[in-house]
Amino acid sequence: MNHSPKMLSSDLIHEARARISPFVHRTPVVTSRSFDEAAGRQVFFKCENLQRAGAFKMRGATNKIRSLSNEELRGGVVAFSSGNHAQAVALAARDAGTRAVIAMPTDAPRAKVAATRGYVAEVVFYDRQRDDRAAFAREIADREGLTMVPPYDDYLIMAGQGTCALELFEDVGDLDALVTPCGGGGLFAGASTAAKGTNPQVRCFAVEAETADDTRQSFVKGERVCIPPPPTVADGMRNQSPGALTFPVLQQNAEDVLLVSDVEIVEAMKFLLFRLKLLVEPTGAAAAAAVLFNKLPPDVERVGVIISGGNVDPSTLAQLISQEV
Amino acid sequence: MNHSPKMLSSDLIHEARARISPFVHRTPVVTSRSFDEAAGRQVFFKCENLQRAGAFKMRGATNKIRSLSNEELRGGVVAFSSGNHAQAVALAARDAGTRAVIAMPTDAPRAKVAATRGYVAEVVFYDRQRDDRAAFAREIADREGLTMVPPYDDYLIMAGQGTCALELFEDVGDLDALVTPCGGGGLFAGASTAAKGTNPQVRCFAVEAETADDTRQSFVKGERVCIPPPPTVADGMRNQSPGALTFPVLQQNAEDVLLVSDVEIVEAMKFLLFRLKLLVEPTGAAAAAAVLFNKLPPDVERVGVIISGGNVDPSTLAQLISQEV
Repeated sequence: MNHSPKMLSSDLIHEARARISPFVHRTPVVTSRSFDEAAGRQVFFKCENLQRAGAFKMRGATNKIRSLSNEELRGGVVAFSSGNHAQAVALAARDAGTRAVIAMPTDAPRAKVAATRGYVAEVVFYDRQRDDRAAFAREIADREGLTMVPPYDDYLIMAGQGTCALELFEDVGDLDALVTPCGGGGLFAGASTAAKGTNPQVRCFAVEAETADDTRQSFVKGERVCIPPPPTVADGMRNQSPGALTFPVLQQNAEDVLLVSDVEIVEAMKFLLFRLKLLVEPTGAAAAAAVLFNKLPPDVERVGVIISGGNVDPSTLAQLISQEV
Repeated sequence: MNHSPKMLSSDLIHEARARISPFVHRTPVVTSRSFDEAAGRQVFFKCENLQRAGAFKMRGATNKIRSLSNEELRGGVVAFSSGNHAQAVALAARDAGTRAVIAMPTDAPRAKVAATRGYVAEVVFYDRQRDDRAAFAREIADREGLTMVPPYDDYLIMAGQGTCALELFEDVGDLDALVTPCGGGGLFAGASTAAKGTNPQVRCFAVEAETADDTRQSFVKGERVCIPPPPTVADGMRNQSPGALTFPVLQQNAEDVLLVSDVEIVEAMKFLLFRLKLLVEPTGAAAAAAVLFNKLPPDVERVGVIISGGNVDPSTLAQLISQEV
């Protein structure tokens, strides 16, 4: 099995889909007339918050781990993440009967650590100030014979993430546009490639929080830009630059990178929660916010929106929904 | 069109489905391995919290209103409710281009009044202490030429509610058991009749809050019992007795009426919110609570659970999820 493809293609995404479908949910597509009225467009939400482990990350992690050689599988995997990627790698590894080591910062939220351990992963801690996390994880990988599962900069990861867009187009037919949240860019790279494979004319938009606009700046400048650690409620968008492998795909597929404010993100989150009854984390609501607050070109009518995840802890949720109660 | 059928049948539910399908969502069925592990069974959630107007009530209201004669439709409809039935009748009437008057108690929550008015319904108030609400609504109906849309004691209403179980069985195949929340009994009557029409052996269970056990008491005694106004977090279960028409159907179809505590309901609600990412109102989580807290007979393996609604206001939700944070 070829587990180090050298580019992302529609075929790679179709292969990913065949590989992962026994292990991931085919998530529902939800529509809402009240959202459509508020947004002035016809919107189809692909609900990856209802995915196993609560986010689309399960798709990429499963595709990567299920592509390993038997020898690699016997050795186990390692990932560094305090977010949804950690839980996805832990769960996908458990499914595959292999060992997972997750490197998290010492100040990671206890709920995330507990959730990751709940999937039988070993959690090791690094000091965010003192340690270079990539070097830290590579050292563990070398010492213990583990294979790294990167969060986005890997074509098998991107291909796995892209499978959600294949399902969306199958369920709803053609669309004018596809809108996804954008952190490191793995979801956008995979989903836009899948969408263009279905219809080369479909218009693809990535969405970032306006204070975490590393991809926007890079897109405008035409090369990868690194920004200081960005403050935003969307904790899945706190990366400082787009990926080396994801960014060229974004340059090729994105019509634009749209920005939304934290207030718009929280408003969209509340709309999705109280009107559509879906718990969506701030990052997961960013693409919906871009549609709700009219950031798309006026001639886009039928639009697919990826709701990327739903992992929020109770205290954070109580705080966010109480702000305007 | 015969709009006053004299009994509930599987055929009536199939007719209802054909009549209402352009106007209601075919809601998704969601599964969760973590719920299954916690419950020790294989559970299929029919997500009526994702229905239009946030609850299964949209099905019955639409079936009733779409069965009216042209003359009745010209006159408009009236309902008395401060809950999900109010919003469903308001929205179904708006869809059908007819007038809706909703009678609510003067102390109804402002959010519910606003939501109902949002669907262009006229809201009139009655005094819960002073007025007999049925007489009050009948007087309005007579005076203004409106047709009453009752909340549950009507075969067209029950047939509409039952369509959710038809869809569930179509999506997941055969089940050992079907579990639904039970307020006035319209949902249970319709859903159990639909289920038995698909497979006469399927075991049907209704679930009540233990402080609101009018149906449980009636089921045990073999006749309708009236209890004092029951205190429970499940506001859709605060009725004092089962319906005159729904109760005989329940007697025929129910294997048992199960009870869950308010604490169990809130725990189930939190599980559904933070693990399955679904906002479910307390009443809507009662059947899930019965499965999660092991109230079913041990030999039930594949079980369908109706999540009946998801209308919770932000302040109530913040309060409920903060209790154990």
